[in-house]
Amino acid sequence: MDLNVDMGESFGRYKLGNDEEVMKYITSANVACGFHASDSLVMFETVLLAKKYGVAVGAHTGLEDKRGFGRRRMDITPEELKSDTLYQLGALDAFLKINGMKMQHVKPHGILYRMVSDEEKYAEAYLDAIKMFDPALFVMIPRGTLIWQMGLKMGLKMSAEILVDLSYDDNGNWVLERTKKARSPEEVAQRAVMVAVDKKINTISGKLIDAEADTVCCHGDSPNAAEVVRKIKEEYERLGIPLKSLVNS
Amino acid sequence: MDLNVDMGESFGRYKLGNDEEVMKYITSANVACGFHASDSLVMFETVLLAKKYGVAVGAHTGLEDKRGFGRRRMDITPEELKSDTLYQLGALDAFLKINGMKMQHVKPHGILYRMVSDEEKYAEAYLDAIKMFDPALFVMIPRGTLIWQMGLKMGLKMSAEILVDLSYDDNGNWVLERTKKARSPEEVAQRAVMVAVDKKINTISGKLIDAEADTVCCHGDSPNAAEVVRKIKEEYERLGIPLKSLVNS
Amino acid sequence: MDLNVDMGESFGRYKLGNDEEVMKYITSANVACGFHASDSLVMFETVLLAKKYGVAVGAHTGLEDKRGFGRRRMDITPEELKSDTLYQLGALDAFLKINGMKMQHVKPHGILYRMVSDEEKYAEAYLDAIKMFDPALFVMIPRGTLIWQMGLKMGLKMSAEILVDLSYDDNGNWVLERTKKARSPEEVAQRAVMVAVDKKINTISGKLIDAEADTVCCHGDSPNAAEVVRKIKEEYERLGIPLKSLVNS
Amino acid sequence: MDLNVDMGESFGRYKLGNDEEVMKYITSANVACGFHASDSLVMFETVLLAKKYGVAVGAHTGLEDKRGFGRRRMDITPEELKSDTLYQLGALDAFLKINGMKMQHVKPHGILYRMVSDEEKYAEAYLDAIKMFDPALFVMIPRGTLIWQMGLKMGLKMSAEILVDLSYDDNGNWVLERTKKARSPEEVAQRAVMVAVDKKINTISGKLIDAEADTVCCHGDSPNAAEVVRKIKEEYERLGIPLKSLVNS
Repeated sequence: MDLNVDMGESFGRYKLGNDEEVMKYITSANVACGFHASDSLVMFETVLLAKKYGVAVGAHTGLEDKRGFGRRRMDITPEELKSDTLYQLGALDAFLKINGMKMQHVKPHGILYRMVSDEEKYAEAYLDAIKMFDPALFVMIPRGTLIWQMGLKMGLKMSAEILVDLSYDDNGNWVLERTKKARSPEEVAQRAVMVAVDKKINTISGKLIDAEADTVCCHGDSPNAAEVVRKIKEEYERLGIPLKSLVNS
Repeated sequence: MDLNVDMGESFGRYKLGNDEEVMKYITSANVACGFHASDSLVMFETVLLAKKYGVAVGAHTGLEDKRGFGRRRMDITPEELKSDTLYQLGALDAFLKINGMKMQHVKPHGILYRMVSDEEKYAEAYLDAIKMFDPALFVMIPRGTLIWQMGLKMGLKMSAEILVDLSYDDNGNWVLERTKKARSPEEVAQRAVMVAVDKKINTISGKLIDAEADTVCCHGDSPNAAEVVRKIKEEYERLGIPLKSLVNS
Repeated sequence: MDLNVDMGESFGRYKLGNDEEVMKYITSANVACGFHASDSLVMFETVLLAKKYGVAVGAHTGLEDKRGFGRRRMDITPEELKSDTLYQLGALDAFLKINGMKMQHVKPHGILYRMVSDEEKYAEAYLDAIKMFDPALFVMIPRGTLIWQMGLKMGLKMSAEILVDLSYDDNGNWVLERTKKARSPEEVAQRAVMVAVDKKINTISGKLIDAEADTVCCHGDSPNAAEVVRKIKEEYERLGIPLKSLVNS
Repeated sequence: MDLNVDMGESFGRYKLGNDEEVMKYITSANVACGFHASDSLVMFETVLLAKKYGVAVGAHTGLEDKRGFGRRRMDITPEELKSDTLYQLGALDAFLKINGMKMQHVKPHGILYRMVSDEEKYAEAYLDAIKMFDPALFVMIPRGTLIWQMGLKMGLKMSAEILVDLSYDDNGNWVLERTKKARSPEEVAQRAVMVAVDKKINTISGKLIDAEADTVCCHGDSPNAAEVVRKIKEEYERLGIPLKSLVNS
């Protein structure tokens, strides 16, 4: 199992997340690319941090809306999504390239995660951009969504993701929150274990639903993010569940 | 001689320049990278246009200030300049890569042109970024400036540039204008010929000063940019002065 | 009848519209407030221009999206719309106040025009902001929309508007275009006359539908905006239709 | 003595400062206006908070640079400074007006504080904007600066300010820091008392220099801002130094 967290979401004077502490326990970092969060200096430093801790790096691409943190839907055109995605992939790649690193994956951020999951025109534009840029990139997305199916057909490497620190409804959809609440590290770790071992997750109504995953995600902007990922890593180690990045699986 | 023009300076609804027409007559396009002008879609389209007309592409990097069009000095840190430069180089490179093209050169835009020319801390940061990203890139800059000397020492390919549609003072410095005035195509072409043949240019005081150049530049946001570059191309052809991009020289 | 046009849509180096020429023929100017277009200096100059030609000024408020020119729907919250509207009203008011002028009206720009017309949560937030700021403001909006009814109930001064240079469908809805096409001044003037005299407008299918209006609108970013409004003014004068701003009606 | 703190510096998802806690102990709030920090919703909420605690409100105007938090000098024109200032004053005024409040003061933020203090062209533009908007506004600025003298001549109400949580050099200039360090509340309170009682402050070299003030300032983005202002208030009360806003003095 891979453990991914959103990293590099600070912006100038505005600090978000405890990146250095979180980086110690995870295997993949989703690095914001300056659209919904971050700036070039934060990206540079975040890539150096990932390098220091041997964490694989992916592009966390988002809508161009810092005020809304990429969480407000914008009716951009598919052409805009395609070029915005290429722009962000290229920008991040510069920092990887100069550090002798290779981009591992792409993951859509915030409301874009949902837009590309559900809507064909956006899914197509997003996958097109990724394929043109580098067809070897992993794409983190919920299994069974429209984009999941389309990506497989295009020959892309789709990585099934479960967001273990968010709530799911009975249809397997997660609930978007503007500001993350702190959840108990134990509860989140228990959910991460259940995903790894039982391939299930419980919903807000108390049901258990299927949750087969290649990677589990925690959010870096929750107040206790570092504790949460440390606890997941500990529990996985205790139970002998191997924790590796996607490229190492 | 290479003939370079700033291209892709439109931004969303805001159109600037007559790129398709200008592209027909030039050998190198300086493509804005979304900081002082442009957006990802404009960049995508501008690269396609350059490809269509066989024009070599370079990154026209600038300060992050669309309102000021990169013409207002900002006291950014050298670290910010380095990471901003890498970010812009990477972003543009994505559009080249998917088109099977290779970036030819880098050129600082607006007030950044002057900041890196004259100030050691900025010159160093700028050259460092370029060297880390791709040491084979040409760097367009006035011959004899501080950055020119520093770049040569670092083993970078410095391309001497003369801005034939701007005025020079007797010290060889050009005068920054917020909005370009239309100059007669004949006058600009005559200056371009003088640079190519005599390696001289006349100043606002009427003197002739040395002006040895690998590339001459016209600005794409002047009202008659297309006529100007057409005239230069015609005059060069008439006089048998070969017009080629830097990579083909 | 009042004749309103969007003014002050330039942004820094990016020029849009022929404001000085258009200002000569209109009675109300919808001045962009820095969110979808414009900047503070453009606003200052636009207000001075309106003063010079005795044109009444209103706030043309929009979504915070210069790249999309306020034409891309964003799922902002009603609270964001309310505070964004107040912010823009206040910002424009500063330039009016120092010139001894009074704001006449408010008009939502681009996709916001439609969002507040049709959706209760947005209509309510928008009207609340206007009422709190100044209940004497006119609100330009299509007659019969949801916001029209809500505004009347709140005691606000609703001004029925017809966009005479846009196409209407048979339901009385106008079609949003990213970039304005030039229409013949004669055609637009004829439509403006028909609205004033017959209270009708023809649709894309060729039908005539009801179109009772207090104000007719032309768009300032069409290439021939000045000719269009001049022609409307001429036709109105020829036919003895009085042209006055809302506050003078 | 008045005690002023920068408030409302959050931006969307990015939270900065502990405004509600700080507001309890201060007499004047410098509210950011969306240029160097904040957004319209943050401004709305900050004004409501000031109202709740009976704190006088001023406009904390800054350069349009959120990434640099208004701390990077930009060579804007005096005309841009004038119109940017008017824009920000108007925007904040909207939130005061709807709450039946009156703006008390204006204070330049970050590097703008220094630009208007020292440079005539900026001092003039800034004061012009304030006088045009409302000549009854207090202007917080260090006593004895160029703008101080110019403001007095123009008949404006200049309020002498000492930044008690920043270091001063022997010339009476404070040192700009990108990220605030936590200082001991006791130390800052002691400095605030010394300013109020002895009209002196100690410098980084250990000297005592004159420091006559109408208002003392602490920064809201330091980690322990609330403790600092609470301590100042306590010490002032213990020593019988009256703490009142400028309009109540």
